Amino acid sequence: MPSLLIKNADWVVTQNKKRDVIQKASILIRDGVIEEVGSSVASADVELDANGKIALPGLINTHTHLSMTMFRGFADDMLLQDWLQKKIWPLEAKHTDETCYFGALLGSAEMILSGTTSFVDMYFHMEAVANALVKSGLRGFLSYGIIDQFDSAKARLEQENTRKFLEYVQALGNPCIRFALGPHAPYTCSEETLLWAREYAEKNGAIIHIHLAETRREQADFQKQHGMRVVEYLDKIGALSKNMLAAHCVWLTKSEVDLLAKAGVSVAHCPVSNMKLASGGVAPLPEMFDRGMAVGLGTDGASSNNTLDMFETMKVCALLHKAHRWDPTVLNAQKVLDLATIEGARALGVEREIGSIEIGKRADIILINTKRPNMMPIHGRDTVVSDLVYSVSSGNVDTTIVDGNVLMQNRDIKTVNLDEVLPRTQELALRMVSN
Amino acid sequence: MPSLLIKNADWVVTQNKKRDVIQKASILIRDGVIEEVGSSVASADVELDANGKIALPGLINTHTHLSMTMFRGFADDMLLQDWLQKKIWPLEAKHTDETCYFGALLGSAEMILSGTTSFVDMYFHMEAVANALVKSGLRGFLSYGIIDQFDSAKARLEQENTRKFLEYVQALGNPCIRFALGPHAPYTCSEETLLWAREYAEKNGAIIHIHLAETRREQADFQKQHGMRVVEYLDKIGALSKNMLAAHCVWLTKSEVDLLAKAGVSVAHCPVSNMKLASGGVAPLPEMFDRGMAVGLGTDGASSNNTLDMFETMKVCALLHKAHRWDPTVLNAQKVLDLATIEGARALGVEREIGSIEIGKRADIILINTKRPNMMPIHGRDTVVSDLVYSVSSGNVDTTIVDGNVLMQNRDIKTVNLDEVLPRTQELALRMVSN
Repeated sequence: MPSLLIKNADWVVTQNKKRDVIQKASILIRDGVIEEVGSSVASADVELDANGKIALPGLINTHTHLSMTMFRGFADDMLLQDWLQKKIWPLEAKHTDETCYFGALLGSAEMILSGTTSFVDMYFHMEAVANALVKSGLRGFLSYGIIDQFDSAKARLEQENTRKFLEYVQALGNPCIRFALGPHAPYTCSEETLLWAREYAEKNGAIIHIHLAETRREQADFQKQHGMRVVEYLDKIGALSKNMLAAHCVWLTKSEVDLLAKAGVSVAHCPVSNMKLASGGVAPLPEMFDRGMAVGLGTDGASSNNTLDMFETMKVCALLHKAHRWDPTVLNAQKVLDLATIEGARALGVEREIGSIEIGKRADIILINTKRPNMMPIHGRDTVVSDLVYSVSSGNVDTTIVDGNVLMQNRDIKTVNLDEVLPRTQELALRMVSN
Repeated sequence: MPSLLIKNADWVVTQNKKRDVIQKASILIRDGVIEEVGSSVASADVELDANGKIALPGLINTHTHLSMTMFRGFADDMLLQDWLQKKIWPLEAKHTDETCYFGALLGSAEMILSGTTSFVDMYFHMEAVANALVKSGLRGFLSYGIIDQFDSAKARLEQENTRKFLEYVQALGNPCIRFALGPHAPYTCSEETLLWAREYAEKNGAIIHIHLAETRREQADFQKQHGMRVVEYLDKIGALSKNMLAAHCVWLTKSEVDLLAKAGVSVAHCPVSNMKLASGGVAPLPEMFDRGMAVGLGTDGASSNNTLDMFETMKVCALLHKAHRWDPTVLNAQKVLDLATIEGARALGVEREIGSIEIGKRADIILINTKRPNMMPIHGRDTVVSDLVYSVSSGNVDTTIVDGNVLMQNRDIKTVNLDEVLPRTQELALRMVSN
């Protein structure tokens, strides 16, 4: 693998412990690892001119359903249950390996173009999604969605899917493609499945990706059926775990936040999806921070967002919490960027591998072009992070690097062939909708 | 002026009364006016290939301060009063014709790139802003910001600025540059100035651009000083008018909405700025709609947003109201697009000139490139508007046409020279901050 030099970036936003922002610096990458960061870096086999650009860690999308990109815009402005039952579930039944493969390629292209380098997925036909990642070069934490509907036979079948998928991922041997557990939610999975997932995750060093407390209805139903709130239920049956990454967590009491924090659970906060589906309420991020919880950001699937754009999600995250708490200081730009990078990595338990630009870490790095009207002026070191969170449009992402591989340069994607993927996804989507 | 043909657009989103979305159609423009829309349009002097693109009316930004683009990112995550008093006002005192001219050119370039064709401005050095528009080709409703601080001498001086600016605009004789009144707010302008503005606007057929009810503090102060709420005060002194375009209107009671509706006042809703500055509360749009009020969307200045991106504002507008009312149906994509186009035009009293693609209207039209991953797939006629509101990123704007003039084609701006404007604004901004 040729060594790579990101040369003379205007700013390097390191996201290291001190959150250093270095002016005019270069980054040397060898064998996919960051070897040097500074002003006096020597040459390399391949050089990328980063003059006029900001280098920062690639963004980490902690919750999505990549192949749902096929359903982008198909059903908007609807109530959550109508949306799921009348529109999404009937369409999902028509998915094949092919539609999931192309949906995942389409989503990959969108993520590469908008500066996301890692993501956490939950869906079906996951072997096809893994194959799409082999092609696109993104870093993915992939989970087979398990819905057993409290049926033991179905539970065993779903567990088998997951076991097979682990074998598939192991056989691929691609360090960027990692296995995760995907019990869909406490309201769709039995106690048996939740406990199995916990044990299987521990045994295989994997995260458990789950939906949690997205709606008031979920809480009301648990109260009715179990006489307790949903996190209390998970705690009681022993399903909480430090491997758990819980998406949404909108409707929590403080004592539920306490239980999650005590168990070491991480959170994938999805502000755009929560607002669009009108979940109401706002995930209690300040309370999570107070308890030291790891919180990442997620877009959710493109059918409930409708983008996979993490820059948009960062900005909306900041806006939502400021408006909700009547306090512009409650979540500042630095904190929001943390959620999308190093805290996202911590939520996945990989903060020693990715999430910042530091020597020894895997080289997941993006470059932002500042020579565009919407990025001008830049007032100096103190405002660069703010510019990234509040001003960047995804079109400003110039270069996307994962594990030292350049997936996009000058907005030209090197790994996904758009001339093939765009017409094919359009055709497959129309066929799914019309049949 | 050569005739122009927008040829074979995949979709034409007309925003006419029936909100027709026409598949595969062309648009013929002669002398800046839309002459024909349909599938069998003949040829023209100049043809733009719109295959793979969506044509829609250019977006109307009903509230901004264009030259504040110079302060983008300079002061974020601050309380409104700190932000104004410690950061913005001291910097504004350093503005010159030159800084306002280049700030306005920078903002113009950003608007052209993100599909805005008309905007309403309030600021200082407005002759310089008008000059920038002569260059950029955008359609602007420009008002000299009046702050008299309840001082009669200052009021006369400010009125004189406005009078001179009207003469300046008249002398330009550019149909895209229109004069507006700009009394800053009821808490910075005397009764004398507010009534003068009302009269002067009526005499000159101009709109009155004003800030109104942006914060709780404003309402609390009026209650303390006048024993009534701010809209009740404006009603009592006789300052309300059908020419008034009131920005923000966040903190209103229903009876204040009644008063505004009765007087025919229009509203510029600025969701991103309101959220970022944590104004708290949400402008009561459904109540305004119920009363038939004209509501447009605005970005506010780039220093409190931090973009001038109306596509972002449309999406955040939808998200905010859905989340606030716990109802995903409260503001659907069609209604949001209306606010940014035909309803924005109605708020400015120019709905017979712009805001839709209809025969006889001025040709303010933009083209969106659908052949990008974030715009795929498109499921059909029923989802195109939804795709525009929830999926478009400003980078998808391909072409921007104002009054029949092509300001941008294939993302190449024809009127503003970025090679000159970008370094110059960076230099001027740093000089303002450092002095």
